[in-house]
Amino acid sequence: MRAEILSCGTELLLGHITDTNATYLAQSLAALGIDLYFVSQVGDNQGRIVETLQRAWQRSDLIIMTGGLGPTEDDLARESISALLGETMQVDSDLEATLRARFAHSRGPMPERNLKQASLIPSAQTLPNPVGTAPGWWVERDGRIIVAMPGVPREMYRMWEQEVVPRLAPSTGGLIFTRILRVSGLGESAVEERLGDLIHLTNPTLATYAKTDAVDVRITAKATTGEEAERQVAEMEVRVRQLLGQYIFGVDKETLAGVVGNLLLTQKHTLGVMESLTGGLLSNMITNVAGSSNYFIGGLVTYSTDLKAQMGVPRDTLDRYGAVSEETARAMAHAVRERLGVDFGLGITGVAGPDEQEGKPVGTVYFAVEGPQGIVTGRGPGWRASRDDNKRFAALAALNLLRRFLEGTIQPEH
Amino acid sequence: MRAEILSCGTELLLGHITDTNATYLAQSLAALGIDLYFVSQVGDNQGRIVETLQRAWQRSDLIIMTGGLGPTEDDLARESISALLGETMQVDSDLEATLRARFAHSRGPMPERNLKQASLIPSAQTLPNPVGTAPGWWVERDGRIIVAMPGVPREMYRMWEQEVVPRLAPSTGGLIFTRILRVSGLGESAVEERLGDLIHLTNPTLATYAKTDAVDVRITAKATTGEEAERQVAEMEVRVRQLLGQYIFGVDKETLAGVVGNLLLTQKHTLGVMESLTGGLLSNMITNVAGSSNYFIGGLVTYSTDLKAQMGVPRDTLDRYGAVSEETARAMAHAVRERLGVDFGLGITGVAGPDEQEGKPVGTVYFAVEGPQGIVTGRGPGWRASRDDNKRFAALAALNLLRRFLEGTIQPEH
Repeated sequence: MRAEILSCGTELLLGHITDTNATYLAQSLAALGIDLYFVSQVGDNQGRIVETLQRAWQRSDLIIMTGGLGPTEDDLARESISALLGETMQVDSDLEATLRARFAHSRGPMPERNLKQASLIPSAQTLPNPVGTAPGWWVERDGRIIVAMPGVPREMYRMWEQEVVPRLAPSTGGLIFTRILRVSGLGESAVEERLGDLIHLTNPTLATYAKTDAVDVRITAKATTGEEAERQVAEMEVRVRQLLGQYIFGVDKETLAGVVGNLLLTQKHTLGVMESLTGGLLSNMITNVAGSSNYFIGGLVTYSTDLKAQMGVPRDTLDRYGAVSEETARAMAHAVRERLGVDFGLGITGVAGPDEQEGKPVGTVYFAVEGPQGIVTGRGPGWRASRDDNKRFAALAALNLLRRFLEGTIQPEH
Repeated sequence: MRAEILSCGTELLLGHITDTNATYLAQSLAALGIDLYFVSQVGDNQGRIVETLQRAWQRSDLIIMTGGLGPTEDDLARESISALLGETMQVDSDLEATLRARFAHSRGPMPERNLKQASLIPSAQTLPNPVGTAPGWWVERDGRIIVAMPGVPREMYRMWEQEVVPRLAPSTGGLIFTRILRVSGLGESAVEERLGDLIHLTNPTLATYAKTDAVDVRITAKATTGEEAERQVAEMEVRVRQLLGQYIFGVDKETLAGVVGNLLLTQKHTLGVMESLTGGLLSNMITNVAGSSNYFIGGLVTYSTDLKAQMGVPRDTLDRYGAVSEETARAMAHAVRERLGVDFGLGITGVAGPDEQEGKPVGTVYFAVEGPQGIVTGRGPGWRASRDDNKRFAALAALNLLRRFLEGTIQPEH
């Protein structure tokens, strides 16, 4: 099956927004085993949309449109599909009633121009949109499929996953189930190396993605029933977990800070951090999790050496080993644990760059976690990245050490 | 002049990367007054690239290609242009010498497959790429222009700005000069309202963009000489500054934290912050600036009420007014200034969400800056955004208050 994406919106062609919808759909199509050969962006101009649709109709089996479903004259997706197929739009009374009820409930009387959002053509079925006013269209004719979805990402994601993917099952040879395993502490190529030949399987398929906060391993299975696809994914997950073990910290949309937060909540433990090179980023990641005030007492961004001493790092340690050292990281973890009276104290120090410090190169990082059972330490491999990236890598590595400590997969020194 | 963008790369169609190059070029074309009607993404397949080029050749005056200039067999931009025009690629001896010298200098002998990066066709001129191995192509024939640039954003941006835009001057009716004025403290629609009719001018043009950290006002002028274009931008800048005044914090790529850092450096002042709802984000923004250790002593992320008290906020203030109050923000600014012995202390407290706190709604934010001359305070307008956005808005608003205090455009209470 050959697919093609058509993204509609003049705001794309003015560079006001980036077409991340196409990226999302491209990833999903790859997982579904559907070939994607063309992506086009066209402005809100019916002539150019129809021209692009005509070409897509000749060369593709599945045309996925996003955008152009709003109520204004600039929103031309429905009109363009109707023109392509030579069919006439008519208001569907059920859709109209739903739309009017929706307006009455939330924003008062419906403007008449919104009525076109309740329109259909004979070849089109409606794709419900419970999170917005614009329903989508599912069009089937002459062995081809056109899907029209809203451009608002949140609405589009939901419609694609809940409405479109299940309807595509007969064309893709089955139902799909996908799970993402999230990996920290290994680079993408190290992950691929460990996965070995699994990466070349055709069903289930495995694919790796380097994200800013993790390496994702996506397992996708296709089967005649959803349950069977889910079972195949679960089997493959067991094999992947054998190969990647404790490097896997979560699934699907979980974050390292979220996983750490859940562990702290479950274990009824509190956390405090003392950070230097990460400069507040570590605390910020932790507090991006809703409800983090239940376990995160606070953070000390001890950027200057004097402030480290003031907050409890012995002068002697700073003088003897330097502010960038394992000994200082350990002392920071200990000091913040004592100062803030928390169960777990995390200390992190290093060189973010662009300049070296104390003769230590950019990317040098030491971190330590002190808990009730003792202390664990870690260090960066010597990242040679930008200042921002060094900070991010360091904060994630420290969170990952804390996770392993809380999970009990790393043993503390006493 | 009608332009069209063609982005080449199978990684785009697998969703491994997002086509941010197209967004960048679309913004620049809008500023140049060149109409962009189509953007296409095509994989590394010569048939499909040539098919798309043929159509573009029929309907557009300027075809901008990115990607496909690497040394491998998958890199097909040059081959596809040659096939489109029926011209034969030949190695250019000057280009070859440059490329070999580049390899000898940095990575040893050049693989023979890289030789195609030194090739040209009769209608093509080379576009130098001092930051990468792949030079671009500037192709002119039959009144049409094709520009082929590398897909690596850093290389492409430089080539576009330094090599392509000047060559486009005859076609766009002159040379272009652009300056961005960065605005904090006003939303995009409020900025547009203040700019009034200026927004409808045709030369210079004004356009506004809502970025995550500011509203940008881009002034673009076109003239027969670069100096004249620059002079027109400077004149317009004066008018815009009259309308937006102290809301403008910087130009081009400056950030609020960078501007604040420069002010502190120049005034030889130090800074410390005590933050609650922003949870480390404010310190993180400040320390994203290289060299911030010269003025930033540190930050206290006093997430719990007890930690606020431990760090010097009077219990009485917390009990009487609550942790989320102007009084507490003032006390935080004072406490961190005293505790850390800094010239300027900044305190910020509020409700990030998703739940309300002390009966105060999500988005409530108070902040204060205490300096040698007294104290200034500010509050959020009651953002009703996501947790992440509330944190970001709050941190930026606090930095903006600090900037105005340092610039002397807001008078402190004594």
